[in-house]
Amino acid sequence: MVVELVCVGTELLLGNIVNTNASYLAEMCARLGMSSYYQSVVGDNPQRMRETIRQAVDRSDVVILSGGLGPTEDDMTKEIAAEVMGRPLVEDPHSREMIMAYMKNYMKTNAQKVITSNNWKQAMVPVDSIVLDNANGTAPGIIIEEGKKTVVLLPGPPNELKPMFENQVYPYLKKKQPEVILSKMLKITGIGESMVETKILDLIDTQTNPTVATYAKTCEVHLRITAKAENEAAAEKLLQPMVEEMQRRFGKHIYSMDEKETLEEAIVKILANQGLTLSSTESCTGGMLSSRLINVPGISAVYKEGFITYSNEAKHRYLGVSEKTLDTYGAVSEETAMEMAEGCAKQTGSDVALATTGIAGPDGGTVEKPVGLVYISCYYKGKTYVQELHLNGNRAKVREQATARALILLRDCMVGLKD
Amino acid sequence: MVVELVCVGTELLLGNIVNTNASYLAEMCARLGMSSYYQSVVGDNPQRMRETIRQAVDRSDVVILSGGLGPTEDDMTKEIAAEVMGRPLVEDPHSREMIMAYMKNYMKTNAQKVITSNNWKQAMVPVDSIVLDNANGTAPGIIIEEGKKTVVLLPGPPNELKPMFENQVYPYLKKKQPEVILSKMLKITGIGESMVETKILDLIDTQTNPTVATYAKTCEVHLRITAKAENEAAAEKLLQPMVEEMQRRFGKHIYSMDEKETLEEAIVKILANQGLTLSSTESCTGGMLSSRLINVPGISAVYKEGFITYSNEAKHRYLGVSEKTLDTYGAVSEETAMEMAEGCAKQTGSDVALATTGIAGPDGGTVEKPVGLVYISCYYKGKTYVQELHLNGNRAKVREQATARALILLRDCMVGLKD
Repeated sequence: MVVELVCVGTELLLGNIVNTNASYLAEMCARLGMSSYYQSVVGDNPQRMRETIRQAVDRSDVVILSGGLGPTEDDMTKEIAAEVMGRPLVEDPHSREMIMAYMKNYMKTNAQKVITSNNWKQAMVPVDSIVLDNANGTAPGIIIEEGKKTVVLLPGPPNELKPMFENQVYPYLKKKQPEVILSKMLKITGIGESMVETKILDLIDTQTNPTVATYAKTCEVHLRITAKAENEAAAEKLLQPMVEEMQRRFGKHIYSMDEKETLEEAIVKILANQGLTLSSTESCTGGMLSSRLINVPGISAVYKEGFITYSNEAKHRYLGVSEKTLDTYGAVSEETAMEMAEGCAKQTGSDVALATTGIAGPDGGTVEKPVGLVYISCYYKGKTYVQELHLNGNRAKVREQATARALILLRDCMVGLKD
Repeated sequence: MVVELVCVGTELLLGNIVNTNASYLAEMCARLGMSSYYQSVVGDNPQRMRETIRQAVDRSDVVILSGGLGPTEDDMTKEIAAEVMGRPLVEDPHSREMIMAYMKNYMKTNAQKVITSNNWKQAMVPVDSIVLDNANGTAPGIIIEEGKKTVVLLPGPPNELKPMFENQVYPYLKKKQPEVILSKMLKITGIGESMVETKILDLIDTQTNPTVATYAKTCEVHLRITAKAENEAAAEKLLQPMVEEMQRRFGKHIYSMDEKETLEEAIVKILANQGLTLSSTESCTGGMLSSRLINVPGISAVYKEGFITYSNEAKHRYLGVSEKTLDTYGAVSEETAMEMAEGCAKQTGSDVALATTGIAGPDGGTVEKPVGLVYISCYYKGKTYVQELHLNGNRAKVREQATARALILLRDCMVGLKD
């Protein structure tokens, strides 16, 4: 089955945003075992949209359109797709209700007093189509089936598109695939992408079924192993030996084999299993670390409290970092990082404490302590571990990496990679 | 002049990498005032590449191809583009020299001992084309001119593509561009996208030059006004009245007219101008708010310290939220939010303090206090402001919106929208 992605939006043509929807959808479709030969981007122009959709439907089995489903006048993906597929639009009462509920809630917190009439445009759907509820916005998704062709319409905002695809479109497409595709995701930390690739070069070179693909994420490498077969049992049988081989090669560096589990979720699970409480204190990452942790549902069982100690004064006052240490070694030093972690554990009575301090830039760097120099520290079971990092990239990227590396340090301590 | 981008590479179709080249090139071309109607991605397949390049050359004046210029067998962008444009390939002695010099240097620092013969493929160029030196790799870029059509070939790696475009292609295209394009971005908070659009429907309906486009972001709407003219002064003259009209309609809700300025940057600027210091205390947002603020370079001048007070105990201990308030109204209440902000200002000696407390979900909601109920509070100049929010979406989205709304509340206080 051949899939083609068409992303709609002038903001993509103007380079205002990066097309992360395309890479997300492409990855998901590859996982479904679909082939993909083309992707395209087209602006909010009826004639050009018409041509692009028509061409995509002609040459591919499934066309996934994203963007242009909103309430405004230049949102017309649905109208054009319906026209190309020869389907008039009718109002969907269920979608109207969903929009009403969403807007009522929205108006409670916003100055807005009335639901502007353009919102109801979003309740219009092509006749005989499958309507996909949008849990995170007002525009429903739509699937139009016509003979052997399928057109899927998804809202543009990634936080609406992704859950809709995952929960509704993915299972739908999976059923259409004649072969069974099974894949397993192994999530690895602490080893860089090129090193991961080197370690499995022999397996990649000879791969046919199952196949192995690597995806580099911030301080993580994800390995996807995919097998195709007539039925689930046969696919599982192809998959299993490769999974085991990877486990032999990467061992404890694999933090999860669950597609949806994030590093912070895996960490919270270990903390809970070990009955440990956690606190954090952050300088350069300034809340990014606690924010990632607190995004895990049920975090309150393990996370106690956190400090954003951006100033030396705060490091001293809340964590008891000694003035001598700050004077002698500076705020960005191994010594300060360690005293921060230890002080944080003591102050909060937590079993485990994480600390970050560094120079995120663009200013503040010196020859001895350049931008990108970050110390992360973890107090764990009476011992304090510290790491010196030299990170590349801009301020946001340095902070993101420092956050990820602090989480990895914590995990390494807990799974025995630091012994 | 119409430009079209064609990115070549199977890794894009599989979603292994995000297409940042497309957004970079699109933004640069928009800045040059070129129109762009289509972008496409195609894999390393001769027939499909041929069709895609031919279609792009037919419908656009300038086609920029990226990727597929390397030394391996499946790199064939140059071969196919030369074929489509009817130009045989000849060896370019200068490129051969450049490749020789680059490889000699490369071999010094790497284990490689010989220059493999496939490298010389990169010295072959279409006859009568313009060759662009590659300072960061071995594949030269190429410009083929044929009548009114121009085809530009760039290497795929961003660290080769970007400097080559900036230093050689941008000046080349600038000379070709007859018109000047000026655009202005207005960033709005506190009014939803559909309401913004309703307020400017009359202007959108009649727009020709300048044009107006709206972009919805989390709790923000961005308006781009774009004018085309013969010269900069004429474009400015077209732009200015529309900008002023928007300022009349949206007033203080416009937080920035600077393309690159974020909401948090605008806020930090106001804080610095007013000579105010800021601290924060977060429950449900758990560091997301401080993290956004701390991403602003130079934040240390205004931001003092922050607390992640996820537990009731922490709210009481650090901020002095009374046990009576917590017992009577609960942690998620107007009263607690206000005491958090007041306590945070007092404890840290800050002029301004922000607090968040809410139910981010997926669990923890009740009939009276459902998931999505969040209170945000701002202590500002002796007064404490509080807002009750009812937010839609999953845990991450609730937290993102709560964070944005807390920033907006702070801005509203400072610019007098709360008086």
